[in-house]
Amino acid sequence: MPNSFEPIGFIETCFKERFGTPRQPGLVPSSWGILRLRPELNLSDALQGLEGFSHIWLIFVFHQNTNKGLKTKVHPPRMEGEKIGLFATRTPHRPNPIGLSVVKLERIEGNTLHLSGVDLVDGSPILDIKPYLPSADSLPHAQVGWTSSRPERTVEVLMTEEATADLRGLLPAGIDATRFKEAVREILELDPRPTFYKGTLEKPNPYTDVYGFRLDDFNVVYRMEGVRATVLHIQKWTDDPSAPPRP
Amino acid sequence: MPNSFEPIGFIETCFKERFGTPRQPGLVPSSWGILRLRPELNLSDALQGLEGFSHIWLIFVFHQNTNKGLKTKVHPPRMEGEKIGLFATRTPHRPNPIGLSVVKLERIEGNTLHLSGVDLVDGSPILDIKPYLPSADSLPHAQVGWTSSRPERTVEVLMTEEATADLRGLLPAGIDATRFKEAVREILELDPRPTFYKGTLEKPNPYTDVYGFRLDDFNVVYRMEGVRATVLHIQKWTDDPSAPPRP
Repeated sequence: MPNSFEPIGFIETCFKERFGTPRQPGLVPSSWGILRLRPELNLSDALQGLEGFSHIWLIFVFHQNTNKGLKTKVHPPRMEGEKIGLFATRTPHRPNPIGLSVVKLERIEGNTLHLSGVDLVDGSPILDIKPYLPSADSLPHAQVGWTSSRPERTVEVLMTEEATADLRGLLPAGIDATRFKEAVREILELDPRPTFYKGTLEKPNPYTDVYGFRLDDFNVVYRMEGVRATVLHIQKWTDDPSAPPRP
Repeated sequence: MPNSFEPIGFIETCFKERFGTPRQPGLVPSSWGILRLRPELNLSDALQGLEGFSHIWLIFVFHQNTNKGLKTKVHPPRMEGEKIGLFATRTPHRPNPIGLSVVKLERIEGNTLHLSGVDLVDGSPILDIKPYLPSADSLPHAQVGWTSSRPERTVEVLMTEEATADLRGLLPAGIDATRFKEAVREILELDPRPTFYKGTLEKPNPYTDVYGFRLDDFNVVYRMEGVRATVLHIQKWTDDPSAPPRP
């Protein structure tokens, strides 16, 4: 069997680091991604006919996994500390670190696919693209096991006038400020912090802390107070070690 | 990036050869499959919690691909001779021959998953299992491009009394005759023959021919007359070279 695969391309997305990257596609509809097929593979003909599909599957590699040893059980955020078998989750830490996401296909230009509603970290190697076929892929009534009794937290998100002013001053032509703010809101509503920082759904961490995450080329600085997030500043992203910490 | 993957297990299915294997999962709900995780990988703990899901994704390798060179355009059956880019289809012939199917999870016993509604050829290497999450994976209204104007053919399927009698005499305890007949009907309704043999939807091949396909350990012999399939005999499968031909 062939068991060695070469990426057909790499995706560029607004999620430049794992912190802040949503755990499922579609959770941040305002997110964006650009997939360029590797020109040396001469695959642009292979995209013909794909333009009529509104959604596509991406099969990709979780290339930012850092831990070496595999654990058969994981702590999904919704389980608030309890463990569950990795195959009952979509964790990136799998025997074969292969990811699966359905994303919205905005348009195709030559070798390049413009996408939204992505949940892939920037630079993810893409192994395959498939059209989304509702007749085969859509099962709205499938039973969802443990996740059904585990609602996700929703955080209230406020944007300060300072942050809005920052955005006006910083955004280059071509990036839409309304969409950028929407993406920030959608990301923070999900409370991207690990369980350790969040506390549980019933007992959220009551303390106040300031964090930052990178979205596109910007550092989004926000304050968490209980279950409220307030965006304080949006700065041009730098490697500055004094930037607010990632939890 | 990791680009070499090891199967977590191999699936045993009722589809012992490519001819007769449905092109999408769910088309033959009465089909069956058994996935055994490789015991040396000690992954049974990784299944804990999966039992509550009704459906799972299998990410697998198309291990029976025979052609070496990659063609960027393919002839999907519904296109009746027209070509389309491979990424706009679910063809097995892809730059990375990775398959994606959602299947029904009947039950889990230790290391073994009992499945139905499969479309995998027997022996397919499995790279990953993921729970099906309707919140992320179900998009009933996704637009389907070229496939929307290309209905699949439906063939009328008749079962002779001889075939029914064969089945009664042959089936071992543990295989359900009603289910076996249902699977035969579901497979033949889809007309598994290549376009060259079928003719087009408007001009079906009017000639009469006898074919066979292997389902589980049985050879199903049937006659095609236009768009009607009549199951003539069901025999214990052997390598007999005089068996009716696969188209």
